[in-house]
Amino acid sequence: MPGKLFIISGPSGVGKGTIIENLLQGSDRLYFSISATTRGKRDYETDGKEYYFVSKADFQDRIKSGRMLEWAEYQGEYYGTPAGPVEEKLEAGFDVILDIETRGMAQVREKRPDAVAMFIYPPAFSMVEQRLTGRGTETAEKIKGRLEKGRSECRKAGDYDYIIINDNLDTAVAEVKAVMTAEKCRTAQRLHILKEDKSL
Amino acid sequence: MPGKLFIISGPSGVGKGTIIENLLQGSDRLYFSISATTRGKRDYETDGKEYYFVSKADFQDRIKSGRMLEWAEYQGEYYGTPAGPVEEKLEAGFDVILDIETRGMAQVREKRPDAVAMFIYPPAFSMVEQRLTGRGTETAEKIKGRLEKGRSECRKAGDYDYIIINDNLDTAVAEVKAVMTAEKCRTAQRLHILKEDKSL
Repeated sequence: MPGKLFIISGPSGVGKGTIIENLLQGSDRLYFSISATTRGKRDYETDGKEYYFVSKADFQDRIKSGRMLEWAEYQGEYYGTPAGPVEEKLEAGFDVILDIETRGMAQVREKRPDAVAMFIYPPAFSMVEQRLTGRGTETAEKIKGRLEKGRSECRKAGDYDYIIINDNLDTAVAEVKAVMTAEKCRTAQRLHILKEDKSL
Repeated sequence: MPGKLFIISGPSGVGKGTIIENLLQGSDRLYFSISATTRGKRDYETDGKEYYFVSKADFQDRIKSGRMLEWAEYQGEYYGTPAGPVEEKLEAGFDVILDIETRGMAQVREKRPDAVAMFIYPPAFSMVEQRLTGRGTETAEKIKGRLEKGRSECRKAGDYDYIIINDNLDTAVAEVKAVMTAEKCRTAQRLHILKEDKSL
């Protein structure tokens, strides 16, 4: 039985990363997809860990030949999800998590209507505001940009299959896990058992 | 927020009762619906515990006035789910479990398309056969009738939202709980949070 594809989105500062870390620690049949980008590698980054760092020509070629599951251009650089590793892992029976934006979600859904999409929502958007401002590592302008983006991301939460409210990390992780378990119990996933039951 | 309505079906002997007992022990916001019947009360039974025992005239009146969520006639007696208690509990925010047959499921779905239906399936139908035969409390003819019914119930598992395989009680209970948690995270259940978020 192939694995299931899960999309996780949410505004910057909502705690997506921590939730995903918790999921990965709890399972050895779960694969976290690594994005590709054309932007330069930073000193602390490793190719294949934070991103696959590729050239513009390579990225454009991947787009043309349909080898990107989703992609976007942002400030002149490409970002996206290479389809190959995702499909390989699904075929091998792993569940796969994509941490992508709402625009990417729409693209993935077109190609894989069976993907299950969860939106991580803050208890109130004002808490994202506090967290982003509180970090103190970015200019006011950058924070403003992130907030605007976060706000427009949150407004698209209604397009998702599930909304997880991250007001308590343990509850949020448990809810994401419940969604993943439940989706594997869906009738379409299990009808093969009836077909294989020769005593029926 | 009103509660959610969950339907649980499965062949006699699959272990539905034990699963439901486990669910009820783990939650005080869960209500198990009690059926009404026109068949005579047995000595060990209490009215309002195993069944609500009602007269035929009363039951027929409930059907006519739309106060039965589902019902069926079996060997000249009526069996069914009174709508009143279910709706009261849902309104009060309780989740409600109905343990009903596949035919009843179809009736409930017509009235409440938001009901979530789970089918408890045996690891193989032959195990239900073994369990029913092994009980040794019923005549061969009765067992045969139950098996035929169980078999025809199992063939309708494909009409359900979820299929839970009861080859391990703990796993089956965990899966049913995961479905209940996940269904409460569905976007339709949570969109009100976005609407109420004045900081968005």
